[in-house]
Amino acid sequence: MKTNAGNFFEDFRLGQVIRHATPRTVTAGDVSLAISIYGSRFALQSADTFAHAVGYPASPVDDILVFNMVFGKSVPDISLNAVANLGYAGGRFLRPVYPGDTLSATSEVIGLKANASGKTGIVYVRTRGTKNRDEPVLDYCRWVMVNKRDASAPNPPDHVPNLPRVVDGASLGEGFPRIDPGTWDNDLSGSPHRFGDYEVGEKIDHVDGMTIEEAEHQMATRLYQNTAKVHFDGHAAKDTRFGKRLVYGGHIIATARALSFNGLGNACRIAAINGGRHVAPSFAGDTIYAWSEVLEKAEIPRRPDIGALRLRTIAAKNHPCRDFPGREGEGYHPAVVLELDYWVLMIRWARQR
Amino acid sequence: MKTNAGNFFEDFRLGQVIRHATPRTVTAGDVSLAISIYGSRFALQSADTFAHAVGYPASPVDDILVFNMVFGKSVPDISLNAVANLGYAGGRFLRPVYPGDTLSATSEVIGLKANASGKTGIVYVRTRGTKNRDEPVLDYCRWVMVNKRDASAPNPPDHVPNLPRVVDGASLGEGFPRIDPGTWDNDLSGSPHRFGDYEVGEKIDHVDGMTIEEAEHQMATRLYQNTAKVHFDGHAAKDTRFGKRLVYGGHIIATARALSFNGLGNACRIAAINGGRHVAPSFAGDTIYAWSEVLEKAEIPRRPDIGALRLRTIAAKNHPCRDFPGREGEGYHPAVVLELDYWVLMIRWARQR
Amino acid sequence: MKTNAGNFFEDFRLGQVIRHATPRTVTAGDVSLAISIYGSRFALQSADTFAHAVGYPASPVDDILVFNMVFGKSVPDISLNAVANLGYAGGRFLRPVYPGDTLSATSEVIGLKANASGKTGIVYVRTRGTKNRDEPVLDYCRWVMVNKRDASAPNPPDHVPNLPRVVDGASLGEGFPRIDPGTWDNDLSGSPHRFGDYEVGEKIDHVDGMTIEEAEHQMATRLYQNTAKVHFDGHAAKDTRFGKRLVYGGHIIATARALSFNGLGNACRIAAINGGRHVAPSFAGDTIYAWSEVLEKAEIPRRPDIGALRLRTIAAKNHPCRDFPGREGEGYHPAVVLELDYWVLMIRWARQR
Repeated sequence: MKTNAGNFFEDFRLGQVIRHATPRTVTAGDVSLAISIYGSRFALQSADTFAHAVGYPASPVDDILVFNMVFGKSVPDISLNAVANLGYAGGRFLRPVYPGDTLSATSEVIGLKANASGKTGIVYVRTRGTKNRDEPVLDYCRWVMVNKRDASAPNPPDHVPNLPRVVDGASLGEGFPRIDPGTWDNDLSGSPHRFGDYEVGEKIDHVDGMTIEEAEHQMATRLYQNTAKVHFDGHAAKDTRFGKRLVYGGHIIATARALSFNGLGNACRIAAINGGRHVAPSFAGDTIYAWSEVLEKAEIPRRPDIGALRLRTIAAKNHPCRDFPGREGEGYHPAVVLELDYWVLMIRWARQR
Repeated sequence: MKTNAGNFFEDFRLGQVIRHATPRTVTAGDVSLAISIYGSRFALQSADTFAHAVGYPASPVDDILVFNMVFGKSVPDISLNAVANLGYAGGRFLRPVYPGDTLSATSEVIGLKANASGKTGIVYVRTRGTKNRDEPVLDYCRWVMVNKRDASAPNPPDHVPNLPRVVDGASLGEGFPRIDPGTWDNDLSGSPHRFGDYEVGEKIDHVDGMTIEEAEHQMATRLYQNTAKVHFDGHAAKDTRFGKRLVYGGHIIATARALSFNGLGNACRIAAINGGRHVAPSFAGDTIYAWSEVLEKAEIPRRPDIGALRLRTIAAKNHPCRDFPGREGEGYHPAVVLELDYWVLMIRWARQR
Repeated sequence: MKTNAGNFFEDFRLGQVIRHATPRTVTAGDVSLAISIYGSRFALQSADTFAHAVGYPASPVDDILVFNMVFGKSVPDISLNAVANLGYAGGRFLRPVYPGDTLSATSEVIGLKANASGKTGIVYVRTRGTKNRDEPVLDYCRWVMVNKRDASAPNPPDHVPNLPRVVDGASLGEGFPRIDPGTWDNDLSGSPHRFGDYEVGEKIDHVDGMTIEEAEHQMATRLYQNTAKVHFDGHAAKDTRFGKRLVYGGHIIATARALSFNGLGNACRIAAINGGRHVAPSFAGDTIYAWSEVLEKAEIPRRPDIGALRLRTIAAKNHPCRDFPGREGEGYHPAVVLELDYWVLMIRWARQR
């Protein structure tokens, strides 16, 4: 067999490190495509002049674009035979990526747990994205339910890793160039609100809705070189439970992040992903809305320029978010498709001297 | 409220200058996307080698792409609560834009006129697009009908600006690098016809039709970072008069300009926009055709390389333009969606010495 | 008439050389778009770091992207009035193309043959793609059935060129930088199989399926600046035999090549096209699958780094290829849409010294 059938549950071994295929030089072309697909408006990522003015060498590549490209590389080895992407934890963005940088990825198997059914098991991996000569840019854990090739194959011993519930906010900001908040232009950034203006518990409806087309989510997901068949094969999809192609979860994350500009325009970078859940599937034709709640605020030692806001962003489909649909009892409001718990870096007001 | 609700009619003041958010570094990625969405074939904008041969430092960015990017920046401040985009006047392209240049925009309120209904008013703005360190690239007036937030709010005093009906053709061409018409290669440019070959009154059917898909107009409009909800939110659109998303008017302008290559291949740059009217809405699934009439020809002093052709380009939907559909009585042929009155720069034949 | 009506059969003359319009500087934007539309994962074309490691100055542009761009330029002059694209022969990729290179194309009429009907004729051309200052990059023959403008016009004398059935495998590889196979990283390239691991007669099901959307094939075909109306004009298409837009054949070739990564990951470059047939039309909504058969293997003199595999790749629609649908009797399995006979260059194992 010359083709890649992907790994099944019994193929994984604890401690195994997999170098993923197809490194990728990120270019201005990728940046333009991401803007055309998501419409992101964060000024730091949009204009080199804005980036230079605040002290960056150039506009950094959107953090979620980096995440989705690194994630995409892991799919052929980790989740080609996955039943479900169950969660994320301990994600950290360690270094900005600029056009011209080349991304690579490896994953380490950090946990394995057979399911009682005997047909599937949960695989926990830590995926590391690096650029150029092994400079770390991103590091996150995810766990997926993966089919067994052969239900009678012996299972590896169970090992469930101890994953952080929340990344420590005070530890963030390393590898982020320091910004001079006095040079940050609120008119150009599109928001008059800075770190000090947000309060824990505050809820922000991001208002705008974005309808997803098949061509859009396919183009995005292929841009990430993500090979999961469920997103591309409409013929095979006819015989599935949903009867149609599924939208890649990372497409929803990127859409929600772009929508969050309206209310969080100075949340210029994502620093960490504490957790995330793809609560329900999305399909072409769905309109995505989003809202965010400020869960926590963290001062970052020796960083007078930025603070960290811990956000919960909820994306919902075909349901504007002015009523803040979220968790309900054991589950979620039926419109919810994504819950993402993450840290953003937000510009502070320049201190009076 | 952290989100941007946009300005309502009573928020504008005569003379007010608004600096728009999200400067944008235009890149080769944007150029490729515009080609993939519109299929433009003008050689000067397509090949650096062609541009160098005639004396440009590089291929300039398509003028309508620049226009749509500048326009997009103005939307969140000017027309988020607009009912209708009523017209354009006095537009001038002042300087070529190259990949790597960063576009910014400001708008000045140059007129205000309350409507009799008391619910809306007309806002006139002059929007200026600049690149890098405030080098002007584009300057145009538009007027839009904007909702009032509160019908009982007092209206500003009426002031209707005196707008030019037509930009003076002889004044055009400043900021356009001089071209050596002897180095202009008609085979490569795709047209044997130059300035001297066109006559006032001549009508050109651009022949080809282009069917618009939802993904295409959405990707284009997001590329411009235009945030008008009517183009993106299919869920909310269900409850509107049309029941579906509207195609951004600038998408039709860009489509018509690309179609006009077939018949105007040596009309290498747009110099001015005298006026424009989005006569009827377009939707995904519509096929756009276009034709042009030469309204005027202008010699440009001290420019033996180029002349200016004033064109009226009409775009029609689902109706090929061999019968030149246009104005009919007080209105328009029912297929017409756009009437654009503008000046192009057209290469002249090299003079015999 | 200022518009281009294209050439009809009686307009062509044997030996005529046509310089095609609209040279095109290929950029990183084009590369990103091609990845987003086809999802190609060949490492050499994806990452500059990978390319540098094996001895390329940068990632070369995907060969099929180059082919489709060169082909696109020829359409307005050769096949605007074509009834059918009948075949390809003697195609050779002569030199890698890098972002920043400018592509141009010319075609020479090498054969003409009137059809008995008197309404059409077959035009044979050799199309040459060059970059920058006339450096050859691609050279191929194709023949198309073209309408006559006037059935009563006299036909040119018949001349059917002698076309090679297969390009000589041992002659390939010129103009391809030598690769050091010891530096070729199978983990990063995504395949453990090299030249020595493939056998003549071996069949490979590429497994994955890709559903085509209207926006995708239109964006791809416009990216190539291909102006054939049948791909873009949905209004006119309603009155055709198929009632809808046709997908450009080169879009299917590019899709099949991208799918072939799964099984041929180290087939890093395409060296030649021996022949190709668009067996049946494809439409938006079709899902494309592909499989390949190794027809021949060729050692390339003085090239210990690479060998040439001659492949027949079949693309089928709405029919997974695990049963290898192909020729059946005089015709083809009804699902087949493309048969392509071509040479790829495949990395060899480093020799022990």
